[in-house]
Amino acid sequence: MPLDPSRTVAELRELRELTGDENGAQRVCWTETWVRAKDWMAEKLAGHPLELEVDEAGNQWWTLRGRSGRELVLGGHLDSVPHGGWLDGCLNVVAGSEVLRRLADEGEPPVTVRLVSWADEEGARFGRSLFGSSAAAGSIADQDELRARRDADGVALPDALAAHGVDLDRAGEARGQLENAVAYLELHIEQGPVLESLDLPLGVVLGTFGVERHQVTFRGQAAHAGSTPIDKRRDALAGAARLELEIREIAKRTGGGAVCTMGGVVTRPGIVTSVVETAECLLDQRHLDPGALASMLADAKDASERFAREEDIEVEWERIWNIEPILFDDALIELADEAIREVAGTSHRLPSGPLHDAAEVARAGVPTVMLFVQSLRGLSHTKLEDTRAEHIELAVEALDRLTTKTLERLA
Amino acid sequence: MPLDPSRTVAELRELRELTGDENGAQRVCWTETWVRAKDWMAEKLAGHPLELEVDEAGNQWWTLRGRSGRELVLGGHLDSVPHGGWLDGCLNVVAGSEVLRRLADEGEPPVTVRLVSWADEEGARFGRSLFGSSAAAGSIADQDELRARRDADGVALPDALAAHGVDLDRAGEARGQLENAVAYLELHIEQGPVLESLDLPLGVVLGTFGVERHQVTFRGQAAHAGSTPIDKRRDALAGAARLELEIREIAKRTGGGAVCTMGGVVTRPGIVTSVVETAECLLDQRHLDPGALASMLADAKDASERFAREEDIEVEWERIWNIEPILFDDALIELADEAIREVAGTSHRLPSGPLHDAAEVARAGVPTVMLFVQSLRGLSHTKLEDTRAEHIELAVEALDRLTTKTLERLA
Repeated sequence: MPLDPSRTVAELRELRELTGDENGAQRVCWTETWVRAKDWMAEKLAGHPLELEVDEAGNQWWTLRGRSGRELVLGGHLDSVPHGGWLDGCLNVVAGSEVLRRLADEGEPPVTVRLVSWADEEGARFGRSLFGSSAAAGSIADQDELRARRDADGVALPDALAAHGVDLDRAGEARGQLENAVAYLELHIEQGPVLESLDLPLGVVLGTFGVERHQVTFRGQAAHAGSTPIDKRRDALAGAARLELEIREIAKRTGGGAVCTMGGVVTRPGIVTSVVETAECLLDQRHLDPGALASMLADAKDASERFAREEDIEVEWERIWNIEPILFDDALIELADEAIREVAGTSHRLPSGPLHDAAEVARAGVPTVMLFVQSLRGLSHTKLEDTRAEHIELAVEALDRLTTKTLERLA
Repeated sequence: MPLDPSRTVAELRELRELTGDENGAQRVCWTETWVRAKDWMAEKLAGHPLELEVDEAGNQWWTLRGRSGRELVLGGHLDSVPHGGWLDGCLNVVAGSEVLRRLADEGEPPVTVRLVSWADEEGARFGRSLFGSSAAAGSIADQDELRARRDADGVALPDALAAHGVDLDRAGEARGQLENAVAYLELHIEQGPVLESLDLPLGVVLGTFGVERHQVTFRGQAAHAGSTPIDKRRDALAGAARLELEIREIAKRTGGGAVCTMGGVVTRPGIVTSVVETAECLLDQRHLDPGALASMLADAKDASERFAREEDIEVEWERIWNIEPILFDDALIELADEAIREVAGTSHRLPSGPLHDAAEVARAGVPTVMLFVQSLRGLSHTKLEDTRAEHIELAVEALDRLTTKTLERLA
């Protein structure tokens, strides 16, 4: 069976019909709709010389044995956020299945090739993303912390997993799955506007951004909006406003795809008759280079302290979360670039702002690369998420060529 | 009985003991504690040749008949916010009672002198401030709107008033009370930091600010904080931040005591992983000059529209409330200035940011002036509100002299 990229588009549409509704994709992990998607995928790959297994973390693996026990892994995730898009995650499971069928029909490959559908990439139900891939990568979070999590209906995470045959205490045993992996390839929609703005269908991903996430709290003095002269105010909102504008400048002068976002501000007392006493700001900063990320953080702290001095207010920083940048494999980046150029004429290298299962696999030491295909209007996590059919077909072709090039290199 | 300003301080302290607790003053209108304050005040004035009556709006009036039926009125309010300060409102009722006792002991004055304790200046329980004075001024709000109001426990406003002998349908009949008034004097704490910063005990108030209150909503586009480059964002918070900083410049260049306040911002979706889609800002602008107020509003609108264009977002303005500036009487301002200079050496003229009962009386056409006494740290509506005892005594003396000067002028 030769590669048929148009079949991938047809199958993705079929999956959308099967597991979506008028509000979008509903393949939330640890639900019946997700199980329906898994069963559907298994059916699509039935009848080929593949071994199917589900590991201790609920990840679904198809294995095409090769002449060597070393393994090339293609991975994606069937789960979605509620009211999600039709492509986020499942694109690479379906595209990977097309590549796997093509390889299976050509006989024994030089190395073993596996396709994995990771469990709970989104963390939509329990707020813990990258569950399956982090279990396989050996970096699963504190089990006690996971044990305490409940969904919106009060169902405990261990109970929800158990209903799907997963024992939280044994999920970490999935780490055996990556023992022989020597390359990991993942195709994903970009979820951003860069490729569309460059009018390019495909790009190769250099790695995932490091993230620094803080709550920055400015504290001034509540005072009557009518009786307090402007020059006597200690307005916490002025600190927040200046920081909001400054972080853009910090990102621009840092360059290299740097982004800084103030995603929210909470003002107290927050009434029209009072100067703002406290302004709590949510700050997210991302960069692919650890030094640049650290310096963006230092610059934002310095600026906030200067604003606090000048406004006669106080500022306090509290880290919410952070993760280091994860770089993909140089050799695989070169191969991905070649594959994209062959199918689309031009390639483009870009970092990934969002995290992906590929980041967990790369952290585990497996040489990794990702391909991005253009997202229309940069939208994702909404039913409006879309990618042109011809771009999906080019993406399947690029993934197929990248797989072939990687196999040749490993052989 | 000669004027004894130290007695005013002692009586204010007595009232604090009687009607406050560890959280501050609790003389909320239409409560038992407020009744206790009213009864206490009536007792303090008993035994003097005064007529006491309560009008249809619940205002308490003491009348000292003079040789003429024309009336000079001194006014304040015994009610406070919950957990309020010991001086806000009751200062002038207690200081006025000292002046009234002094006058009563001196025999029949040239014109009639009255002291009024206005009902529900604060509107703390039902959110409608200046209730009693607006009833007397003939500018009481829509009765149907008042009828629908309920307190936090679900008690309807008409029922609460009825429990204190006030029939909402007849409250407007209180307007007869100001028919013969030819001057209105009110002493109040400043509730702001201006006099303290000038190291002055007393000031004369030029009028109350006009107020323009709006909700300004900026609308951009929610977008992934990791995957959306800075130059591709439509960040609603950037519009809000720029407006917050711009309104200060508008107030500064307008001068004349102009104030502009962004009292709160609500950001949506308001999460750390998304660019802000909508930012709803509460804007309050105040000035004593109607032209200056209108131009501050126009400047803020223009600026917001420029920011919206430059940030590729939208902006929408919705008026919450407004009131025109209310100017006090020039001749009374001169007399007040003289009185203050005589007791304190130096006077200072300043506008009032907060509204007061005096504004309602002035709107009704009665020549009006107010005296402000210094507030420590500009604080009010909190148990931390305070004024030095020696400043309270100076204030009583200034009010007494102003009353004498006004009587001389009217005679």
